[in-house]
Amino acid sequence: MELYFVTHNEAKYREAEQIGQEFKIEIRWLNFEYEEIQEDNLESIAATSCRRLIELKTDLQEKKFFVEDAGLFIESLKGFPGPYSSYVYHTIGNEGILKLMNNENNRKAKFNSVIALHTKEGINLFKGITEGIIVEEMRGNQGFGFDPIFKPHSSEQTFAEMSLKTKNLYSHRQKSLRKLFTSLTAFET
Amino acid sequence: MELYFVTHNEAKYREAEQIGQEFKIEIRWLNFEYEEIQEDNLESIAATSCRRLIELKTDLQEKKFFVEDAGLFIESLKGFPGPYSSYVYHTIGNEGILKLMNNENNRKAKFNSVIALHTKEGINLFKGITEGIIVEEMRGNQGFGFDPIFKPHSSEQTFAEMSLKTKNLYSHRQKSLRKLFTSLTAFET
Repeated sequence: MELYFVTHNEAKYREAEQIGQEFKIEIRWLNFEYEEIQEDNLESIAATSCRRLIELKTDLQEKKFFVEDAGLFIESLKGFPGPYSSYVYHTIGNEGILKLMNNENNRKAKFNSVIALHTKEGINLFKGITEGIIVEEMRGNQGFGFDPIFKPHSSEQTFAEMSLKTKNLYSHRQKSLRKLFTSLTAFET
Repeated sequence: MELYFVTHNEAKYREAEQIGQEFKIEIRWLNFEYEEIQEDNLESIAATSCRRLIELKTDLQEKKFFVEDAGLFIESLKGFPGPYSSYVYHTIGNEGILKLMNNENNRKAKFNSVIALHTKEGINLFKGITEGIIVEEMRGNQGFGFDPIFKPHSSEQTFAEMSLKTKNLYSHRQKSLRKLFTSLTAFET
């Protein structure tokens, strides 16, 4: 099966590549940066990105490809940085989030991932959520983005303290990816 | 002259209405919420909003109308919250910005405003910038958004301590509005 992952983020591609192997799906990386709409939900962003990509790169129309959008939603900050996680990471960063969470007792947060898959039949969405907390200090140097400050409930490690293999047991993205791959392989024998 | 301002923000409309009177331009308010693209510059956001509005509301095609997008750019936060000012205001708010600026000596910030005007001839952009600082504590209860924490260099008051009339002497938006109105009335006698 030919399946393309359109993303500018190599780390995301590596995560998908590893999980793809379990499903015997070889994922091809299309390193392409695209403009996202300024919407407050990941579903709309991912679905619209899919549609725009087809307009921009008409050769994609005949291909099976997916995009993924993720965000960190912090309860005490009303869901901030949410769908703007990438921009917020590149401006105030992990340090900024920790400053905002200073003296905050409610440290609940969740990472959401939404995949939009394009096939000739249309667009399908797959969602993954991992709940956890914002830790007090940055921990670990693996992963990317807000990984050093997020610890899922079911682990003692932050995402940045985990190997790729371990993160692929806990992350929001492995959940959406597994749903996608399960759906794609469900009717094979 | 029939001129429409498409905005969901009544306070913005009031500011424009007052300055319009100086130019003898009566501005009509089109209270309509529209989706913005997730771009990192106000020019693209405003221009694209204009184009999308025409697609969405085809009766606008024949009309003279403008949209405005503004953002607060804080130097020590690499321009955050910038084009995402509205989302950031509705999540972490003024309190969040003050927390991020805690113990920060460089308090320089600027407010940018970009107007995109649609006429039958196409789209024109008008920009206004006001430089100032982020004050240590919120001051004033007029205006909206980040007005209580922003003080322009040339005044002792924050935007939220100013009357509408005074804010219309200092603000970024009065600058872009005056450029727009000057351009629209330049060829009248």
